[in-house]
Amino acid sequence: MPAFIPPQRLLLGPGPSNVAQRVLEALAQPSIGHLDPRFVAMMDETKALLRRTFLTDNALTVPVSAPGSAGMETCFVNLIEPGDTVVVCQNGVFGGRMRENVLRLGATPVMVQDDFGQPVDLDKARAALKANPGAKALAFVHAETSTGARSDAQALCALAREFGALSIVDAVTSLAGIELRVDDWGCDAIYSGSQKCLSAPAGLSPVSLGERAVATLKARKTPVQSWFLDLGLVMAYWQGEGARTYHHTAPINMLYALHEALTAVSEEGLEQAWARHFANHLRLCEGLQAIGLELFVAQSARLPQLNAVRIPEGIEDLPVRKRLLDEFNIEIGAGLGPLAGKIWRIGLMGTNSRPEAVDAVLTALSSVLRR
Amino acid sequence: MPAFIPPQRLLLGPGPSNVAQRVLEALAQPSIGHLDPRFVAMMDETKALLRRTFLTDNALTVPVSAPGSAGMETCFVNLIEPGDTVVVCQNGVFGGRMRENVLRLGATPVMVQDDFGQPVDLDKARAALKANPGAKALAFVHAETSTGARSDAQALCALAREFGALSIVDAVTSLAGIELRVDDWGCDAIYSGSQKCLSAPAGLSPVSLGERAVATLKARKTPVQSWFLDLGLVMAYWQGEGARTYHHTAPINMLYALHEALTAVSEEGLEQAWARHFANHLRLCEGLQAIGLELFVAQSARLPQLNAVRIPEGIEDLPVRKRLLDEFNIEIGAGLGPLAGKIWRIGLMGTNSRPEAVDAVLTALSSVLRR
Repeated sequence: MPAFIPPQRLLLGPGPSNVAQRVLEALAQPSIGHLDPRFVAMMDETKALLRRTFLTDNALTVPVSAPGSAGMETCFVNLIEPGDTVVVCQNGVFGGRMRENVLRLGATPVMVQDDFGQPVDLDKARAALKANPGAKALAFVHAETSTGARSDAQALCALAREFGALSIVDAVTSLAGIELRVDDWGCDAIYSGSQKCLSAPAGLSPVSLGERAVATLKARKTPVQSWFLDLGLVMAYWQGEGARTYHHTAPINMLYALHEALTAVSEEGLEQAWARHFANHLRLCEGLQAIGLELFVAQSARLPQLNAVRIPEGIEDLPVRKRLLDEFNIEIGAGLGPLAGKIWRIGLMGTNSRPEAVDAVLTALSSVLRR
Repeated sequence: MPAFIPPQRLLLGPGPSNVAQRVLEALAQPSIGHLDPRFVAMMDETKALLRRTFLTDNALTVPVSAPGSAGMETCFVNLIEPGDTVVVCQNGVFGGRMRENVLRLGATPVMVQDDFGQPVDLDKARAALKANPGAKALAFVHAETSTGARSDAQALCALAREFGALSIVDAVTSLAGIELRVDDWGCDAIYSGSQKCLSAPAGLSPVSLGERAVATLKARKTPVQSWFLDLGLVMAYWQGEGARTYHHTAPINMLYALHEALTAVSEEGLEQAWARHFANHLRLCEGLQAIGLELFVAQSARLPQLNAVRIPEGIEDLPVRKRLLDEFNIEIGAGLGPLAGKIWRIGLMGTNSRPEAVDAVLTALSSVLRR
């Protein structure tokens, strides 16, 4: 079997984004033991860097050793017990996945439905919490990767608190791309992914749980149904003083890479990164308008890092994406679920949120659409 | 935060083992999309390489996107339903983890207990199956990483079939280190880890399910309790003809590395790799004897890739391991659970099963023990 040499792509889909050379180099450092004191010291730095990126002091802030979907599942299986009710806001594919998580826990999801492309409607969420007193949590997606819509995470977290519910926040695509303030906003449980605006390799899911979530975890009446994702056990490895307790073998090299990617975010500064994502989004919007393409999401709710573009009447989805990939080495994303064939998703995430990438996709797209 | 530069260690603990330079280089190739046709082609090659390594034709042979513990959980959550009975053989730490998995599924574990360091007793396993007609599965650890004992996987899989139960086999430490023939032996569900005898970076868990296991999966009455580990969904991504259905974002770069590590195993040849592990184990045994150290496991059940050594009377565990690490950059493993302080675990796994590594640890150990 010959060695696999991947092509050089510009990854402007819904993630993964391109990984910077410095992060790839960190990834390829020699492995060391997951209980090596040098590794444990790096874990502590990684936790500190993650807290800085989430803008939180939460002690329970760690990367789950698996992709964002496992981060989602970590939050649900640790906080929700059979018989609980969870208000789940769905305005895209990932709210539906939250519903699946709740169902598979033997809990009851109460759905707050908004059209794909709309932000979560605060009034509907309020009504659902009011109609379901004692709901354990309000779950929503901050940045819907499937539609490009941003919901008001600050207001939704406040709403959850008003009703005594925990907020469970999907920040897979938002972290480091748009404003997100875990402590100021009172997010109780939040998870993200390594391969979006952090531009680390795909495969890790940073999570953070605040005091109310940790209290809920400690007050559980039933064991966490997943052994692998049980945060009580995970923390004995990530949080022990001195000697760490073995839980599972940490993904050593992936954590090297995350450490380096978070360092890069920290060097730039979070607010600078948010501003950069916004500036390049504006550049893309102008360019799209100039070639006659429309954005799918209303201006007030657009995510700068994930731009859903309406596929023009009479244009087929797949051939365009195929030509972008084959002729220009540019990947953009397809629509998911009900938006398949109706939108393209152009991600400008992390290292890819830069003018050259915007110009490259505009040039390629206009060339392909002309013919 | 300065970049993290790990020390150069010789990893002779229970895993991770050192990752070859060619595999680190594959790991650091640029990321591409997880639905990119070039990536999908590489996935197909990886599945073929995994089948070759497991010696199976099982279509459902894939790397789970998380460490070995998640591979274990994948087998249990997909095959076992609430109310099922599972005979679990415990002769070390990992049998206990299997028990946890069964309990958290709402199923009943029937334990077959053997002392740490002993192989699973076939007569006891047979008695347990006989006493529990209708048991859904017989679960055991082929190579107990916590003790260095090898159990007779071929006989245990045959025993499971005799009683109409599925075999669930932990091959985390055995795959590519000792003889393992999934199809010839009729293993129904088996999982491994990337960081042991495959010498790939830690973080992936190859699993393989045979026809009987797939039939069991298809006949489930309840949904799989984990969304992330639901093989029905995972397979829509890994097995689809042509277009793959998005489930979660695959750990792209880790899969590059696994592909390369499996290629290296294939180049050497499996039987050659088994023979090499055995030869270097013999070299280690001779050397240990020469410096007055004894192995913990009886000769008939010793794993060549994981050598449990009795800590001599009057010697403290931790200071020795610390000096090996600090003065010689060699990591060896501590004992787990009841064996803590009583044994050291010397791993000779994958790339580390070579005479130079054996000689290095013998020299270092004899030097440290002399003073």
